[in-house]
Amino acid sequence: MREFRFATPEEAEAAFYGAFASRSLEEMMQVWAADDTVVCIHPMGPRLTGSAAIAASWRQIFGGGGEMQVKPGGVVVTAGASLVLHSVDEHILLGDGRRGLVHATNVYRLTADGWRMVMHHGSPGGAREGGAGDAEGPPVVH
Amino acid sequence: MREFRFATPEEAEAAFYGAFASRSLEEMMQVWAADDTVVCIHPMGPRLTGSAAIAASWRQIFGGGGEMQVKPGGVVVTAGASLVLHSVDEHILLGDGRRGLVHATNVYRLTADGWRMVMHHGSPGGAREGGAGDAEGPPVVH
Repeated sequence: MREFRFATPEEAEAAFYGAFASRSLEEMMQVWAADDTVVCIHPMGPRLTGSAAIAASWRQIFGGGGEMQVKPGGVVVTAGASLVLHSVDEHILLGDGRRGLVHATNVYRLTADGWRMVMHHGSPGGAREGGAGDAEGPPVVH
Repeated sequence: MREFRFATPEEAEAAFYGAFASRSLEEMMQVWAADDTVVCIHPMGPRLTGSAAIAASWRQIFGGGGEMQVKPGGVVVTAGASLVLHSVDEHILLGDGRRGLVHATNVYRLTADGWRMVMHHGSPGGAREGGAGDAEGPPVVH
């Protein structure tokens, strides 16, 4: 198994979306920190905690039949010294031509093995982004 | 206007859910850092950036007719020195008796004004939480 070591959160994020593109479980799990407190929420899915549950979910996703392209964009960064957040718009293109938007919160931690993902929270996106002074789109519950 | 200063992320989070309970826009916006990079995603809503857009969204939510209780639980903490994440299960009870689960990622930053919220990402919850070795629930897209 190749060993990855990411020098920046951006490198780790590129590897995350690269693993998506290649549907590689091995590459995907090299991005994640290997511990029991990492959290992954797929759109409309339950909250998964710990590497084992998270690996199982990606195995299921990559093993699924449908083709899927994920193009990240519109990144908003919130940086701490050893913990960095990226708010990302994921533009999804399914093999059958359907398109979708997923809002993702990706969190990276500086570990002894370089920067690793410690959280991914994905959810179905609203119609469009709201900027400063722009609060369109009715929030359903809160 | 009362000035709040939160000594811990937990205090800021208690104030966040307290503002929900009292439907107070003033209390809610005291929890948030006042800057243009803060991010709020309400369930199924667009990504809002900046205090003005976020305040407008809460005004709309608190101004809505329906009663709503939000009970946070199952908090998983990911802590950095000046940036702390809480993954929270929000148990929602609407005035008409309907119940729901929202997965929330709440992020707090240590600022010159104490701990403040810099991100809230809420999304409709899956059927139940998956623990280690437990990857139930079909993720729809990813």
